[in-house]
Amino acid sequence: MAERAEEEGRGTPGPHETRSADPVDWLDDGQQRAWRALQVMQARLNAALAGQLAAESDLSLPDYAVLVDLTDRPDGTARVHELARHLGWERSRVSHHVARMAERGLVRKERCKVDRRGSYAVVTEEGRRAIEAAAPGHVHAVRRFFIDVLTGEQLDALARAADRVVDAIDRLEETEGHLGP
Amino acid sequence: MAERAEEEGRGTPGPHETRSADPVDWLDDGQQRAWRALQVMQARLNAALAGQLAAESDLSLPDYAVLVDLTDRPDGTARVHELARHLGWERSRVSHHVARMAERGLVRKERCKVDRRGSYAVVTEEGRRAIEAAAPGHVHAVRRFFIDVLTGEQLDALARAADRVVDAIDRLEETEGHLGP
Repeated sequence: MAERAEEEGRGTPGPHETRSADPVDWLDDGQQRAWRALQVMQARLNAALAGQLAAESDLSLPDYAVLVDLTDRPDGTARVHELARHLGWERSRVSHHVARMAERGLVRKERCKVDRRGSYAVVTEEGRRAIEAAAPGHVHAVRRFFIDVLTGEQLDALARAADRVVDAIDRLEETEGHLGP
Repeated sequence: MAERAEEEGRGTPGPHETRSADPVDWLDDGQQRAWRALQVMQARLNAALAGQLAAESDLSLPDYAVLVDLTDRPDGTARVHELARHLGWERSRVSHHVARMAERGLVRKERCKVDRRGSYAVVTEEGRRAIEAAAPGHVHAVRRFFIDVLTGEQLDALARAADRVVDAIDRLEETEGHLGP
């Protein structure tokens, strides 16, 4: 349930109609299939990549994602709300995660001088060493589970579709304000 | 950094070569672009969908994902390790999340009678009501941010690519055992 009203058959609005002036435009079978396939791929990929990192490095997949984001920046520094936006996490999850990484010496937390409520995460030398040590195994896993499984054409098509979705969200944010939590 | 050795130029193994007998097969530009585009899409989609749920329902996106999984099953019941596999989360994250959802009355935890270490999550009537109330708004958001942005052909291609990735992970798990954390 929850993405279409299976019990009423395709296209029928379902039990939620009474709660809203507009009948719900449930997903049809092809749309439902694409949306679910994306969710399943993401879940299985995340689990497989997390498993590889757990077996071969001292980093979790969320640690790796934070360190990629920070080491991509010239100064190795990001504000918590920027990390939240890039990672698609709630800000409280980023704060807790960065605090745990700081305890392990992978990042350093710094107060923002301009906005007293804001804070920065800065990658440490130890954090840089940890991601450099983990990267070869991670890239090898990304190849095995994803890159080498698809054709170059499929990868290009996927990149174009993903860009289109991100552009659409950008445009909606421009007219409606920040869409994140 | 972390997926290719930018500083050394494309195709060059980079500083990790000394740590392993095989030089690292870093991603080329097109592969890097596809992998990053997928990550960015997923992060932005998650943030936008989480924002919609936070604004219009009492559920978070992780709550919603757990409830979709449970309400998809005829008995509304799943073992924690099944949820972990389906959601792509670490088992400890699922356990903590289910515990918090149980405190809010959305699910019930039950001990497994066969395996004393295992436990089940069961959706409650309150959980069913919560996801039914949240579903129309969530589906509307999935349409706006994703489905309506892409062509039917793009959605089909994406579903086929995703299936191929999931099949590859299934096959690797058959030969190498469970790949998750």
